[in-house]
Amino acid sequence: MDDALVIFTPSGKRGRFARGTPVLTAARQLGVDLDSVCGGRGICSKCQVTPGYGAFPKHGVTVEPGALSDWNAVEQRYKDKRGLIEGRRLGCQARIEGDVVIDVPPESQLHRQVIRKAATARAITMNPATRLYYVEVAEPDMENPSGDFERLCEALADQWSLPRPAIAPAVLRRLQPALRKGNWRVTVALHRTGDAGQITAIWPGLHEGGIQGLAIDLGSTTIAAHLCDLGDGRVIGSSGVMNPQIRFGEDLMSRVSYAMMNPGGAAEMTTAVQEALTRLATAIIAEAGIDAAQVVEAVIVCNPVMHHLLLGIDPVELGQAPFALATSGSLALTARDIGLSGVAEAAQVYILPCIAGHVGADAAAVALSEAPDKSDDLVLIVDVGTNAEILLGNRDRVLACSSPTGPAFEGAQISSGQRAAPGAIERLEIDPVTREPRFRVIGCDLWSDEPGFAEGVAATGITGICGSGIIEAVAEMRMAGLLDASGLIGSAEQVGSARMIPQGRTHAYLIHDGSAAGGPVITVTQGDIRAIQLAKSALYAGARLLMDELGVDRVDRVVLAGAFGAHISAKHAMVLGMIPDVTLDRVSSAGNAAGTGARIALCDQEARVAIEETVHHIHKVETAIEPRFQEHFVAANALPHATDPFPELRKVVTLPEVSFNTGGGGDGARRRRR
Amino acid sequence: MDDALVIFTPSGKRGRFARGTPVLTAARQLGVDLDSVCGGRGICSKCQVTPGYGAFPKHGVTVEPGALSDWNAVEQRYKDKRGLIEGRRLGCQARIEGDVVIDVPPESQLHRQVIRKAATARAITMNPATRLYYVEVAEPDMENPSGDFERLCEALADQWSLPRPAIAPAVLRRLQPALRKGNWRVTVALHRTGDAGQITAIWPGLHEGGIQGLAIDLGSTTIAAHLCDLGDGRVIGSSGVMNPQIRFGEDLMSRVSYAMMNPGGAAEMTTAVQEALTRLATAIIAEAGIDAAQVVEAVIVCNPVMHHLLLGIDPVELGQAPFALATSGSLALTARDIGLSGVAEAAQVYILPCIAGHVGADAAAVALSEAPDKSDDLVLIVDVGTNAEILLGNRDRVLACSSPTGPAFEGAQISSGQRAAPGAIERLEIDPVTREPRFRVIGCDLWSDEPGFAEGVAATGITGICGSGIIEAVAEMRMAGLLDASGLIGSAEQVGSARMIPQGRTHAYLIHDGSAAGGPVITVTQGDIRAIQLAKSALYAGARLLMDELGVDRVDRVVLAGAFGAHISAKHAMVLGMIPDVTLDRVSSAGNAAGTGARIALCDQEARVAIEETVHHIHKVETAIEPRFQEHFVAANALPHATDPFPELRKVVTLPEVSFNTGGGGDGARRRRR
Repeated sequence: MDDALVIFTPSGKRGRFARGTPVLTAARQLGVDLDSVCGGRGICSKCQVTPGYGAFPKHGVTVEPGALSDWNAVEQRYKDKRGLIEGRRLGCQARIEGDVVIDVPPESQLHRQVIRKAATARAITMNPATRLYYVEVAEPDMENPSGDFERLCEALADQWSLPRPAIAPAVLRRLQPALRKGNWRVTVALHRTGDAGQITAIWPGLHEGGIQGLAIDLGSTTIAAHLCDLGDGRVIGSSGVMNPQIRFGEDLMSRVSYAMMNPGGAAEMTTAVQEALTRLATAIIAEAGIDAAQVVEAVIVCNPVMHHLLLGIDPVELGQAPFALATSGSLALTARDIGLSGVAEAAQVYILPCIAGHVGADAAAVALSEAPDKSDDLVLIVDVGTNAEILLGNRDRVLACSSPTGPAFEGAQISSGQRAAPGAIERLEIDPVTREPRFRVIGCDLWSDEPGFAEGVAATGITGICGSGIIEAVAEMRMAGLLDASGLIGSAEQVGSARMIPQGRTHAYLIHDGSAAGGPVITVTQGDIRAIQLAKSALYAGARLLMDELGVDRVDRVVLAGAFGAHISAKHAMVLGMIPDVTLDRVSSAGNAAGTGARIALCDQEARVAIEETVHHIHKVETAIEPRFQEHFVAANALPHATDPFPELRKVVTLPEVSFNTGGGGDGARRRRR
Repeated sequence: MDDALVIFTPSGKRGRFARGTPVLTAARQLGVDLDSVCGGRGICSKCQVTPGYGAFPKHGVTVEPGALSDWNAVEQRYKDKRGLIEGRRLGCQARIEGDVVIDVPPESQLHRQVIRKAATARAITMNPATRLYYVEVAEPDMENPSGDFERLCEALADQWSLPRPAIAPAVLRRLQPALRKGNWRVTVALHRTGDAGQITAIWPGLHEGGIQGLAIDLGSTTIAAHLCDLGDGRVIGSSGVMNPQIRFGEDLMSRVSYAMMNPGGAAEMTTAVQEALTRLATAIIAEAGIDAAQVVEAVIVCNPVMHHLLLGIDPVELGQAPFALATSGSLALTARDIGLSGVAEAAQVYILPCIAGHVGADAAAVALSEAPDKSDDLVLIVDVGTNAEILLGNRDRVLACSSPTGPAFEGAQISSGQRAAPGAIERLEIDPVTREPRFRVIGCDLWSDEPGFAEGVAATGITGICGSGIIEAVAEMRMAGLLDASGLIGSAEQVGSARMIPQGRTHAYLIHDGSAAGGPVITVTQGDIRAIQLAKSALYAGARLLMDELGVDRVDRVVLAGAFGAHISAKHAMVLGMIPDVTLDRVSSAGNAAGTGARIALCDQEARVAIEETVHHIHKVETAIEPRFQEHFVAANALPHATDPFPELRKVVTLPEVSFNTGGGGDGARRRRR
């Protein structure tokens, strides 16, 4: 008989095969992306396919009922035990008996794509560095003595055409029991980079729990991690903890100072962050209910100071010009190298490359996630955290810098500030006529002037104001005429509202007086305004510096990244002059883009190669030594700005032309110079 | 002017070079083996050469006085500071100005040969996996930010044409201080295997302390280490400690049993041996007075059980057929992987391959050192320890086995036995007429019947009998007719000597009665004879098994290896029938051949490749399952042997035809079966 024509969808790959050829074999020979862990033994079920029957005019074939071999006992056993979707066949069992069209469903594709939520973002292609391989290993033979590992390597070569991998001592210790428990059948997790490979875990028999990895965003203030399945890219757990280094200094430079002033201080901070990573990993893995031995990889993104402190490198050089990194390249390490326990003993760790002494692997991760280098229009990406990373560019050129905004945007150094947690005011409006506030509190779905609000917040109370809340409050005060362009708060007389409370020589705006119920009095003080002004000036100055470098006066769109960026109102941010003027619909949030970048690098090893290349083409601008940064910083102190007109903003928002500077106190002038 | 002819000796390499070419440059272009750490900057002095002047008829040139450029200031400064042998020039400073013959002295050759003491052994070629490279690194530039490590890699590429190496976190931590202390000049230790490389240590400026490595022979009873310079191969320190695992079991199988019977027992033994290695390394390095950071490599050889216990692998599989090793291949690890501290933090560890479940990396090391695969005649190599490794072969074929001799040869399980230490009887003769013994004691240069002996041993006393002593004692008893061929000791009446002391139903031979002075009574008991018989039978049976396999009845020569082998008298060993019959001058000692093999692998990375290949061609014979082993074992019980005639031995030694079996006790018959 003639060979049969086989057409795979969705790839469209086609070829002719001798009748009797298993579908999996045909797929492999054609390079069709069809998964298999067991190598065609009918036990892993990864190679499920759906044959199509009838006429396929598009492909020019008609598929007869007998085009595939009959449903067999292996398939039936699998279906009885695990279930199989109607119409599905196991690719390793079904044999080609006639012309046939075979669909490979997404879940059977090894390099399937994971759709990300953000509409603008690219999908993640699943191509993890670690994969599972099931093998049958020859038993030891005294006539031909060889090690169990050597026979495992032979099996990997014979059954998977894999070159001889390395094996960590921790895995070697598990090898003999696993082989014997699995009756000489084992599943190994093989981590491959380039041609070399390393076995990072082993299980008796066919391992069905999959393998997972951690994508870790190690920030100065918080450490966030996603636990991702390395089979389908699913996020199966997320969690965060405070960075315990905060006790050594709130911002990066105070931690660098701590290391410089205290012998052993850097090592102390290294231990603290390594232990925190282990606690976080342990908690997230326990909560997901998976075996720690399955967590075979981690990808970490962080700023340069955290990068060095994690690796036990004294960050002293990062505290002074020329801000030299010990290493800027990506790092392929082991979990043990960074003191990370609670995962597979031989787990591999990848740290993204840094861009410069002030622009770290977190910025590289944002670049990986948001891909400014692939953007047609000019995009400004701002990752707002304790330090802001700023990227500006398009497919022609990308620039980057970082700017020391400090933690005010996160609610720190704010009189009534607190972290974003239940009880915190997160949104706020001020009636431009009555000057009365209405607000929302994290943990309650109602605005403060809606019925039921009091009951809604009874459990948490109203405890303070978080980062997004303070930004909205300041912007609303500016829009309501309670604050002038220089950042001075008006008095009760000047604005005609009893909510303006005198505080020494300045004033504060009373948002909420909970003192009757033993709760806090929540105000926005002149000091809070100044803190926000400093932070936003730094952010805006950094962005302007990049725009100068590129020779542009405006950008096409703005992306706010960072966990906090997700909660910032574009309008309020622009009233404050945090970001350059664009139409509001051109401001989007990318969520935790650094964390997403870490996830991409975890799921797709080619993304690692890509970002390693990309960072070489990103032009770095050092804000700390650039005189224009100071000029931009001073000009950006006003709300929204002393000289930039913000025409798009003024189309949608009216900013009252008020001035509360009575000429006497000079508070504003003094503080502006601090 | 014409190019000048340059001839290098001893290599004979020659070529023509433009006048003004530095000698080092010419040497490199011709592939002449001329060392340099500083890369031609005139500071390391490794490239010293001796120009020859006058007529060289052999080379067809006459060298004029101006053939090299004048002695320069760099050379003068070096000579003033460090001294330079008369006539020597620095190859990087001296330039070729005319035809010249240039001798490269051995100490300037990178791949110099180290002459080993044993006359039969091959010289060691210096080609260590780790080498020093001095580089000048570009300073950081904020305009072009890159990590210090990346600039170091660029310097290695530019100045040494080296591919980008990896760097361990422990070394990365030292990078920035070293670069700054050395004013952007550093020396790195680069460990290269194949194309890849790893920086394992770094020093500011030109590092002049060299680098060293440890060659470790990890035995069941003792752990011995040599500290070797990786520049010239010199052994700069040697030391040994007891293997602390002895408390878990004297021989290997009792340690395997301990691991099987006690949960956590294997881990306990792993910790014990890892700690002992660290103590040994620390002591030997401290004694040599070198900086631990310079010790960048270690090579370890050991038997399979020690191999697994060192790596933390449960040795249970080695205690039962089919004696499967977890891995038989060589291992490239880090010091941290095997819990070895006290050396460079990123030190690399190489463990030689094992040959089979009972024939370990120590046997591979013996094969590397004694090279039976390169021998023209048929050589039997016996590494005598608690377990004996036996190799038999020539360039056509090599066989290997191990045989469980137990520790009797090391003085253990012997009534008056002790380790070879001051106070131990190490040599012994018995007058065939008077049956009186004379002996020598470790720590005293005199025989016991020489004047001054009593004073000579006053400091140590006479404390027991060590391995070589008990072998000589038993052999001498046999030659003096105090012991029959079956191993029975005669009574005082039977042999006519008061030194034969009754002990229950058997007798003992009194060597020394120190009880008057409060010292021990040293005897050789019937039990001691039986222990030696068991040990020597196992050894001989193993050798015979290999001879059977090869189809031969005799061997051309015998090499006794092992620290103990160095002290065995060939004649006495053959009287006991420990080794097959050959003329005595064909029995030689190789000293600690396993340790030498470790040293070779430490000094020459190509030797690692060679032995990895060689072990694949060694045919392994498993004594434990071979029925003929039992037959050979029983036949070998007699002294020297029940059936093998030992004609060469009988040419030089008379063995009295006595028999002390009175037929009643049956002690000998009973014990022989134990």
